Amino acid sequence: MSETEVRIGIVTVSDRATRGEYEDLGGPAMIDWLKRALITNWQPVPRLVADEQHEIEAVFMELADVDRCCLIVTSGGTGPARRDVTPEATKAVCDKVLEGFGEQMRSVSLHHVPTAILSRQLAGIRGGTLIINLPGKPSAISDCLDAVFPAVPYCIDLIEGPYLETNEDIVVAFRPKHAQRRP
Amino acid sequence: MSETEVRIGIVTVSDRATRGEYEDLGGPAMIDWLKRALITNWQPVPRLVADEQHEIEAVFMELADVDRCCLIVTSGGTGPARRDVTPEATKAVCDKVLEGFGEQMRSVSLHHVPTAILSRQLAGIRGGTLIINLPGKPSAISDCLDAVFPAVPYCIDLIEGPYLETNEDIVVAFRPKHAQRRP
Amino acid sequence: MSETEVRIGIVTVSDRATRGEYEDLGGPAMIDWLKRALITNWQPVPRLVADEQHEIEAVFMELADVDRCCLIVTSGGTGPARRDVTPEATKAVCDKVLEGFGEQMRSVSLHHVPTAILSRQLAGIRGGTLIINLPGKPSAISDCLDAVFPAVPYCIDLIEGPYLETNEDIVVAFRPKHAQRRP
Repeated sequence: MSETEVRIGIVTVSDRATRGEYEDLGGPAMIDWLKRALITNWQPVPRLVADEQHEIEAVFMELADVDRCCLIVTSGGTGPARRDVTPEATKAVCDKVLEGFGEQMRSVSLHHVPTAILSRQLAGIRGGTLIINLPGKPSAISDCLDAVFPAVPYCIDLIEGPYLETNEDIVVAFRPKHAQRRP
Repeated sequence: MSETEVRIGIVTVSDRATRGEYEDLGGPAMIDWLKRALITNWQPVPRLVADEQHEIEAVFMELADVDRCCLIVTSGGTGPARRDVTPEATKAVCDKVLEGFGEQMRSVSLHHVPTAILSRQLAGIRGGTLIINLPGKPSAISDCLDAVFPAVPYCIDLIEGPYLETNEDIVVAFRPKHAQRRP
Repeated sequence: MSETEVRIGIVTVSDRATRGEYEDLGGPAMIDWLKRALITNWQPVPRLVADEQHEIEAVFMELADVDRCCLIVTSGGTGPARRDVTPEATKAVCDKVLEGFGEQMRSVSLHHVPTAILSRQLAGIRGGTLIINLPGKPSAISDCLDAVFPAVPYCIDLIEGPYLETNEDIVVAFRPKHAQRRP
């Protein structure tokens, strides 16, 4: 892997997938969506981890600090159940929480199900890495990425990460004029 | 009271009602709404408490840990005034905060009054108990319960509580198919 | 300044404006909006401060505790970048955070740009002072004040501040009937 390559952490959080009782659908769904959405070359760094806060935190720290991922997306573990601890792990490793991501994802999911208010999905910044919690269900992953990704490339600019370009048929990234690099 | 009976804590938080200067309207309004909405047999466990954070926390702990209420609803004490401390008490006893409840209640109340943004209502989980803060005013209690209750029975399933069934003329509870118990 | 005069803190948070590399547009934009909106006599107490959390906190404490401002509005420093620390400073000095302000400001800004979810604007209460974070850009300042100001006079009543009256051509303040003072 070259130093300048764009890397994105793809984290599936699931006790059952970790024990092999259940096929990981969240990880592939996140990769598929990002493959369609990004024009910039990028490399997925996939991880599968149990619903244990300290293990999830360790994965985040490795992906952010060692692998230098500019973005980490997670699937699963954001509900109200006792074993759901992905948001706790995310908050614990982040310098800043961006409340708007969770609000926007719940708002969009409410168009589908009233139980969207049970989701504790959030996003935050750790140094030069944006971490976004997504749901476990593939169709809901896609709805949430559609909703928040227009703000992701500019967010990564602001934390001094790589300049990401999107396929505008899939997602139109917004940048203020002064931040746009056009040939 | 049988071990398997469903119990719901009904907590009015009010200095004035505690001193008898003011009739408690919030408690009866919450009970009336729940009587209309729930088909499942349930027992209210009513409490009246002053706007004192530690007293409110003690009431929550008793209702959750001793009385084994699966749900606690509160009325009052969620504004910006110095004596308003219900959200502080709720956060202090909860393992998890569910931001979506407060967002949804404020969003619905904004259709009535722009001062809805002053409300700090939240919901959280303490072990096997869901705690939901509601406003003090009876008509606003009803608006907020209408807005969030469709998600409540499935939330209580997820924290391993009793299977609540609703009167669908009043509120249509949502559960994903795998969580539905049909005869 | 008389003891009974209404004072409002106007805080521009900007490294560049502090170094003189950049004209402060946020401060004047906040003052202009408030001049149009308020009928009550008031006095701006303007401050310019670098993006340093402890310096911002010191400014808030002076404006709230010494100058007895009933309201402090800030411009800038609410994004995801490393130097953006206005919300951190606000939270640190406040007794209560009012989540509804941030939700409402992001919701309104989302009508203009999808990057509104990157804003961490919040509002909170320190004793008898309401602090509201606004964006850096003058047009966005105006959008946000239009959205939240209808709730501000009643909020200030609730924290025992002065009775603010607005120019209803600009902003219609809402108060419940029992809180209205009419001649």
